[in-house]
Amino acid sequence: MTNSTGTNRQSKDHVDVLIVGAGPAGMMLANWMSRCGIKTRIVDKRGTKILNGQADGLQCRTLEILDSFDIGHRVWREANHMIEICLWNPDENGRIRRSNRIADTIPGVSRFTQVVLHQGRIERFFIDSIREHSDIEVERGVLPSSFDFDKSKAADFNDYPITVALQTLSEEEATPQQQNGSATRDGLFRSNLAADDTEDLIKASKRNNAGHSEVVKAKFMVGCDGARSWVRKQLGFNLIGDSTDYIWGVLDIIPITNFPDIRMRCAIHSADHGSVMVIPRENKLVRLYIQLQSTTHGGGKVDRSKITPEIILQSAQRIIAPYNLTYEYCDWWTAYQIGQRVGDKFSLDERVFLAGDAVHTHSPKAGQGMNVSMQDTYNLGWKIISVAKGLCDPRVLKTYQSERRRIAQDLIDFDYRFSRLFSGRPAKDVMDEEGISMEEFKDAFEKGNMFASGTAVNYGASLIVAKEGSAVEQGDGTDVASAEKNRVISRNHLATGLNVGMRIPSCKVLSQADARPWHLQELLKSDGRWRLVVFPGDLQNRNNFNRIVKLGERLVSKNSFITRFTPIGQEIDSVIEILTVHSGSRIKIDLLDLPDIFHPFHKTQGWDYWKVFVDDESYHEGHGQIYQNYGIDPQRGASVILRPDQYISWVGEADDYDDMEQFFAAFMKPQGPASHL
Amino acid sequence: MTNSTGTNRQSKDHVDVLIVGAGPAGMMLANWMSRCGIKTRIVDKRGTKILNGQADGLQCRTLEILDSFDIGHRVWREANHMIEICLWNPDENGRIRRSNRIADTIPGVSRFTQVVLHQGRIERFFIDSIREHSDIEVERGVLPSSFDFDKSKAADFNDYPITVALQTLSEEEATPQQQNGSATRDGLFRSNLAADDTEDLIKASKRNNAGHSEVVKAKFMVGCDGARSWVRKQLGFNLIGDSTDYIWGVLDIIPITNFPDIRMRCAIHSADHGSVMVIPRENKLVRLYIQLQSTTHGGGKVDRSKITPEIILQSAQRIIAPYNLTYEYCDWWTAYQIGQRVGDKFSLDERVFLAGDAVHTHSPKAGQGMNVSMQDTYNLGWKIISVAKGLCDPRVLKTYQSERRRIAQDLIDFDYRFSRLFSGRPAKDVMDEEGISMEEFKDAFEKGNMFASGTAVNYGASLIVAKEGSAVEQGDGTDVASAEKNRVISRNHLATGLNVGMRIPSCKVLSQADARPWHLQELLKSDGRWRLVVFPGDLQNRNNFNRIVKLGERLVSKNSFITRFTPIGQEIDSVIEILTVHSGSRIKIDLLDLPDIFHPFHKTQGWDYWKVFVDDESYHEGHGQIYQNYGIDPQRGASVILRPDQYISWVGEADDYDDMEQFFAAFMKPQGPASHL
Repeated sequence: MTNSTGTNRQSKDHVDVLIVGAGPAGMMLANWMSRCGIKTRIVDKRGTKILNGQADGLQCRTLEILDSFDIGHRVWREANHMIEICLWNPDENGRIRRSNRIADTIPGVSRFTQVVLHQGRIERFFIDSIREHSDIEVERGVLPSSFDFDKSKAADFNDYPITVALQTLSEEEATPQQQNGSATRDGLFRSNLAADDTEDLIKASKRNNAGHSEVVKAKFMVGCDGARSWVRKQLGFNLIGDSTDYIWGVLDIIPITNFPDIRMRCAIHSADHGSVMVIPRENKLVRLYIQLQSTTHGGGKVDRSKITPEIILQSAQRIIAPYNLTYEYCDWWTAYQIGQRVGDKFSLDERVFLAGDAVHTHSPKAGQGMNVSMQDTYNLGWKIISVAKGLCDPRVLKTYQSERRRIAQDLIDFDYRFSRLFSGRPAKDVMDEEGISMEEFKDAFEKGNMFASGTAVNYGASLIVAKEGSAVEQGDGTDVASAEKNRVISRNHLATGLNVGMRIPSCKVLSQADARPWHLQELLKSDGRWRLVVFPGDLQNRNNFNRIVKLGERLVSKNSFITRFTPIGQEIDSVIEILTVHSGSRIKIDLLDLPDIFHPFHKTQGWDYWKVFVDDESYHEGHGQIYQNYGIDPQRGASVILRPDQYISWVGEADDYDDMEQFFAAFMKPQGPASHL
Repeated sequence: MTNSTGTNRQSKDHVDVLIVGAGPAGMMLANWMSRCGIKTRIVDKRGTKILNGQADGLQCRTLEILDSFDIGHRVWREANHMIEICLWNPDENGRIRRSNRIADTIPGVSRFTQVVLHQGRIERFFIDSIREHSDIEVERGVLPSSFDFDKSKAADFNDYPITVALQTLSEEEATPQQQNGSATRDGLFRSNLAADDTEDLIKASKRNNAGHSEVVKAKFMVGCDGARSWVRKQLGFNLIGDSTDYIWGVLDIIPITNFPDIRMRCAIHSADHGSVMVIPRENKLVRLYIQLQSTTHGGGKVDRSKITPEIILQSAQRIIAPYNLTYEYCDWWTAYQIGQRVGDKFSLDERVFLAGDAVHTHSPKAGQGMNVSMQDTYNLGWKIISVAKGLCDPRVLKTYQSERRRIAQDLIDFDYRFSRLFSGRPAKDVMDEEGISMEEFKDAFEKGNMFASGTAVNYGASLIVAKEGSAVEQGDGTDVASAEKNRVISRNHLATGLNVGMRIPSCKVLSQADARPWHLQELLKSDGRWRLVVFPGDLQNRNNFNRIVKLGERLVSKNSFITRFTPIGQEIDSVIEILTVHSGSRIKIDLLDLPDIFHPFHKTQGWDYWKVFVDDESYHEGHGQIYQNYGIDPQRGASVILRPDQYISWVGEADDYDDMEQFFAAFMKPQGPASHL
């Protein structure tokens, strides 16, 4: 279709979403879009993808998310699994010795443990996944050079308020310079010790006639373009916070050492020479984070030409003595200055968003950066999709800043405490007030572990999280509550093991149709769908059975929320999927005993055998005890509404149709025939 | 290098191994060769790979094997997992009802359960794996047309006694004809109801000038070319046995039915209309094996044009009544006559071998065919490799027939009993002697399950299996024993939970260096290496510790079997890898406390952190209790020698260097510098 100004609306110059930056945050977002048929472009100023170094730590929660996109297993197989943390401190003679062993992942918080795999592989898995599900291509060596926002179009979510000019760089321009004469890749060009080259790249590209230029109009734009975000600068938003005086070096090496815990994650505090963090990695590599100096007071720039792998190694050797440490192979190295900053705003009119390092910078040692960045766009992705498809009210988009800016603030607080404890000199004794108490450090480490798993995230009350309290206080200050008359509050006492606002923890359940055990989370694929998980209790209890029969009747009625919010012509489970987990005996019930809506019939494929589960003993994998773990009474049951990102929106009575209806009606839009895409 | 007759020995016309047939058996063999750098060609007369139908059942043991090649996880993710078997029989009124539920995989026999995934996907995974590890390409539409064997060269394993002419077919010739007018793929062209087309293909190809022809010389040739094996015919070997009168149809459909157990594996015996086996599959498919008729007495050929999917469905509908059953989508179908036959010989002078359907045919319903076929070449592969590399005496090759022909005989016996019970009419009462007792059927099913898991295989005594008894009696009659003076006998009482001749079962152990839990089997990759697994017991016991210190000293001595049998210039673990699993507390021992040979030092990579394990509690995955499960006394220990296919060769005292030495010396060849390849 060609409009009156001659623009072809279907061509590459009009997109639903323009993503700037193809790091983990940008890739996660493009991945979301690829699953849900959203017209998307993703550009990155760098000409090549990352092959070494950069971020590596992956939280349990990140693995859960990647698994919901069917790429978690690729990470799990290749990654180094982090099992134990060893703390090393000076003894009374100043010699380092192992003082503690701690589980790296708190047992029970997730079905995954924390792992380490470098960013380049994660990006590879995303690229494979995006290709498999769409024709979106990552455009490298392409950067935006101008930005215009037409505020008059901002309220019409079918319109294109964003105009961006894109420059294509020559290969030479798009390839970052390495330090002179070095065979090993270094990451200094991305480090905060290096100057930003974005403006130079834009100028060079404009000078260069070979540079291709085009204009793109977008409904949404997302800046995933790092700590020096070009998008953030266009918006005039700021990162608020400070840098510290600590300079850190990073070495990725295959170590040759007699230090006994080199394959453990270690925090080593020497008496007088600073600290090393040891992160064992895939392919026999070990990453060392080494404190180099605490000079350059006043925030002055360090002369990066003076930092070399040899200097970083020598620092490590002093800290780890009397053990020896050397290497023949260095894979990558870099240096950076710690700073903790958070963006003041995450969005312009819910049309342009910032994510990842563009809105939070901090120390890498807690292994949080790549995770929180990907989780930003994991949070944002399904919200953009549901608005772009016309399924949800745009007010849902406000929850992005409310939820993720609050997380960024928590992260920075955590990182500030953690970095200070890690960078400090160990206290010589209880009277040494300038030193850091190693007991305090251990306590912080253990507490930090829960935070670091990513499973402790608890989103505040909002129109998509039905819980008590002030939406303003529980988030970053943005008002994201439902109108009071529409507000639904969860009945927490029906599922005392669940927390509304947190991701649903996983237990094993058995498929009713074939007795196969599944982790509940494995059923919650990231495909943009909401889920109503009905826990009807023991179905041999006549009362429970009658309750779901009645619920089934209301759900299939012509005006039910399921019917109303599903575009006509689409499958009945395409917007809200209903899963059932009953308790009691699997063999006392047949799937077809349940009302049809719980296992919908399809005229060419028969009954749906993949929606009803049971909390029972498996032949080979034990008993998941999901009712017990979730704190649901099998004689009463409960229902749970899950967001497309597996966070718990609502908990209520198993058959409380009215509250379910009211919850969804607060932000979902009644649908006509499926023609909006 | 060009020899005197002008033949380039490095070119494609001289190969170590020529594989005829690229089904699962041929692919498994090519996969082995790809891992170990053996020059190989693999050809198949069919022009396209299989996309639908064919074999689908995968045993636990097959998954273990595929996992040892790092492709098991791909099967595990895509396959349908088989959890429960439901038996349906007529009640007193002749109406079918569920009489029993049985675990499909006996709990505890393996870390995998049985799964179903069609042959085409397995072949895909092999192709990916072969490509990743070698430049071997599967040559399709290529078939051998002449065979010559120079017996005078058979004893020199560096020479090429085999000469074969290969014809390349045109695309049309290589594409099998489907039944007229059908949109659904059928498998009749591969069925034993169809005539063999190999000779026609050869003739057509020779007539056709476009057909490319070439002559290949090979050290080894393996016929994996199916029940009508062209290779077998060249050798003049025979399949011995009978066909039955039962004709079976197979339908792969997405069923539309109210039969409650359609996603379970079911054996349904109707009172008067025969039997159906239900095999739920991947992608919502269900396979039905349906008994069509028991006519055509005297082995006459059935008119296959009379067999259609509609006829097969109607038979199924009669059996499954009063439940209804229909479909809109049929993926594939075929029909076959059950026959049980075993090859009389599996090898010509240990230079030409037969494997898979070429030496055993039977009913498909027990899901054994693809498994036993792949396991044939899994057994053969490493033996050919070790002889081709000059590491082992060629007598090792004799154990292929001894071990695998015995398995084929066992399989046929199993299948005979199982098919008879399945095909028969249910007995009306205890006086009904022509009918089959459903109790007897259930017992046979349960017993058959152990056999069907593939984990019960127990290879007889031989020069590579050090156990009591007659090698002739325990195998197929071939003499494969060591000379009496060299014979070593295992001390079974040191590991009462292990059976010499069986594959080692798996338990979880923790890595000493990083506390990560691994299944022992995950450490036993199929890379052609033998493994000495030392269980030294509790190393805080001074005596145990001293014993492994002494063992370590002998293992590193200049004349040790490890040193002697490893080519000079190769890594010390390249022929025999030493793994250690100690008992007692992980945290009381450091890896570097153990003698170097147990964690060898590499000058650029430092210590080897991946060879020492401990039987201890993990943080997240429980305690493997490997000493208890293997029946090894932690105060005494034991050592175990494993073949490259994970079968147990020998069990002895932890430090019984002399027996280890004698065992290996019976078939391994002392090495010079590594120049033989």
